[in-house]
Amino acid sequence: MRTFHATTEAVLIADEKGNFVTRRVPEIEVELAGIPGDRHYGLLVPADSRQSIYERGTMIANRRQISIISVEECEEIAQGMGIEAIEPEWLGANLLVSGIQGLTLLPVGTRLVFPDGTGLICEGENEPCVLPGKKIAAAISDESLAKKFVPNAKRKRGIVCSIEREGIIRAGDEIRIIRP
Amino acid sequence: MRTFHATTEAVLIADEKGNFVTRRVPEIEVELAGIPGDRHYGLLVPADSRQSIYERGTMIANRRQISIISVEECEEIAQGMGIEAIEPEWLGANLLVSGIQGLTLLPVGTRLVFPDGTGLICEGENEPCVLPGKKIAAAISDESLAKKFVPNAKRKRGIVCSIEREGIIRAGDEIRIIRP
Repeated sequence: MRTFHATTEAVLIADEKGNFVTRRVPEIEVELAGIPGDRHYGLLVPADSRQSIYERGTMIANRRQISIISVEECEEIAQGMGIEAIEPEWLGANLLVSGIQGLTLLPVGTRLVFPDGTGLICEGENEPCVLPGKKIAAAISDESLAKKFVPNAKRKRGIVCSIEREGIIRAGDEIRIIRP
Repeated sequence: MRTFHATTEAVLIADEKGNFVTRRVPEIEVELAGIPGDRHYGLLVPADSRQSIYERGTMIANRRQISIISVEECEEIAQGMGIEAIEPEWLGANLLVSGIQGLTLLPVGTRLVFPDGTGLICEGENEPCVLPGKKIAAAISDESLAKKFVPNAKRKRGIVCSIEREGIIRAGDEIRIIRP
């Protein structure tokens, strides 16, 4: 096990019906099923193209309740797309963290522990889909950006996590990251 | 992703209060929380020495609902201990499988899918503790065996799994194993 540290720069929730975009809040509550009120809340979720070993729509354990991106990787994506910055809201991220290189490459099973004892389990790379590209293109009013997100975000779009220990995550929280 | 196959040789349940030893049954039902009636059933479980990043007794997500061992690795453990055979009951295993080399070394996140669509997620090695050694020593009436289990079972004692897709697992089922 190797332990290192990162900082929670922002905490966000996707609580607008039909919209994956998140908004900043001072803190989020996390339960075993995720963040109450967030679009990814739930113990079970219908399988989609990411879980191709199951028939589409089959109810399976939800291991994608919380998505995390890093300041460092967002800077790299922005640079690759030729834009100034990427806002975590546009990616539907729940946590924006800083102080960690290669967040997206953390192995499955890595633990993220917060000051009040809240614990998340890394479930692996959040593989980029086309929606954030469309959101970025709309936000910057440049249609050509829509297709630039996926190729520039591979292995940089952060991770998805499930919840191991329930609690509260606050903006500013230090994170202890424990690699298996 | 690499896919290969194994066979379910036996299906077992630990449904005697206060006893980790399992008994063979024709089939087990698996829910998100585990096998109803089994001692490891539950969505939450108190953290023990295996989850040392949490204070002992803290309620955390249960990722050790189902334990799986292999015929091949049990033969190796038995050989190392100088005994004829190891019964899956003595290890408290829920599934005994065959046809796979290095079951214990399967990476976290490996999926095991059964004929009716039931899916398990490998949560990693089931690190050997002293209880099976005591059980083996009692079963074979040789006290000297008690301490021989842990050193001989390291990296051979099988894996623990959580449930991704609920269903039924039956003795004789073929298993599709999908490595990340």
